[in-house]
Amino acid sequence: MIQPRILEVRKKVLNKNDRLAQELRADFARHRVLVANLVSGPGAGKTELLRRTMVELKKTHRLAAVTGDLATENDAARLAQSGAPARQIVTGSLCHLEADLVANAIRDWNLAELDFLFIENVGNLVCPGDFDLGEDLRVMLLATTEGEDKPLKYPTLINTADVVIINKMDLAQAAECDVPLLERNIQEVRPGARVFKLSAKTGAGLETWLDFLRQHLAQKQGQRRL
Amino acid sequence: MIQPRILEVRKKVLNKNDRLAQELRADFARHRVLVANLVSGPGAGKTELLRRTMVELKKTHRLAAVTGDLATENDAARLAQSGAPARQIVTGSLCHLEADLVANAIRDWNLAELDFLFIENVGNLVCPGDFDLGEDLRVMLLATTEGEDKPLKYPTLINTADVVIINKMDLAQAAECDVPLLERNIQEVRPGARVFKLSAKTGAGLETWLDFLRQHLAQKQGQRRL
Repeated sequence: MIQPRILEVRKKVLNKNDRLAQELRADFARHRVLVANLVSGPGAGKTELLRRTMVELKKTHRLAAVTGDLATENDAARLAQSGAPARQIVTGSLCHLEADLVANAIRDWNLAELDFLFIENVGNLVCPGDFDLGEDLRVMLLATTEGEDKPLKYPTLINTADVVIINKMDLAQAAECDVPLLERNIQEVRPGARVFKLSAKTGAGLETWLDFLRQHLAQKQGQRRL
Repeated sequence: MIQPRILEVRKKVLNKNDRLAQELRADFARHRVLVANLVSGPGAGKTELLRRTMVELKKTHRLAAVTGDLATENDAARLAQSGAPARQIVTGSLCHLEADLVANAIRDWNLAELDFLFIENVGNLVCPGDFDLGEDLRVMLLATTEGEDKPLKYPTLINTADVVIINKMDLAQAAECDVPLLERNIQEVRPGARVFKLSAKTGAGLETWLDFLRQHLAQKQGQRRL
């Protein structure tokens, strides 16, 4: 479907991205920063989940965030409400984040002073799947308002995800979302996927997600430096 | 941001797409078929709006639909419930429809026997904006559950849209969507945009949208053949 020449050029870009992502990953490992890359379609609630997550984790940990959008600095402003540093990456026409954009955005931050780095990708349920950002965890959000069949219809991104969050649980009933069916569809495409059900708006279910992040950080920080 | 070589190859693909889209547009004009291309992020309700639209219009008009997804034939099956022909375009890893995919999908349909042709794009609020499919109307859906700032954060696609539909009005209150703010944001990015507010699920507001389609068809069919 994609033109052969496009594919060829795309592979080179991906290779360049992969190399840079590996460098980022090595930096993150050296400084034992746990990095999560949040991906979803537009409006699934990445920013609100991240804002609440940052408010809570900031009580005990050091953290920062970068957030990608085609336009506006709205999301960085919302994330900065947590009191932690948050930087906007304005992508222009680019429909996903790439490793060089992230590297550039965090260039003057001292990773040694961070426990968590959060990356909020551009809202897109397809293209961010192709671009490694050096993260430890790729976290995919699906909202109960989006319909139960999204995992089946967008299998590529979910197949690169480490964690799936079903967000907007507070709207599940109003949206007539069949949550067990959505969970079955997630498992059909990504068997064994770790799934969290929560509402970023009300905070219900948030604590389990925060514990998961804390445990992953403890694991990473407990590892001996290689 | 995009590599210069990628840009160059991409322009060639776009040029090829534009040429093919012009051929499609000429075919549609010759047969006086009104063609609408529905675009939105994943889960904004394109399929449900289209299904209901087809059920209603089929009472008085001849119509067909093609629908794009990375995987599954779910949407074509749902649209075929209307009783009208519906064909799935499975795009694999491609995050948008291109003119050749549409041309291929409708190849054995007789356009002379159609009044409306609906094209449901892949759920993506960015990339479909770059690809002309020869349509008369590009119809962008935004759901009240997605947040009011989507027009500001995804300005490129909305700037190519002829019509904006605010869908899931039945969930506006539960989702605490500030609909007047959403409307102001649409007008800020796309001044003078024609906006419809409706619920594809309940059918509220559907009639105004159907009238708009009928009027556009009458206009197109009333035009003298060039």
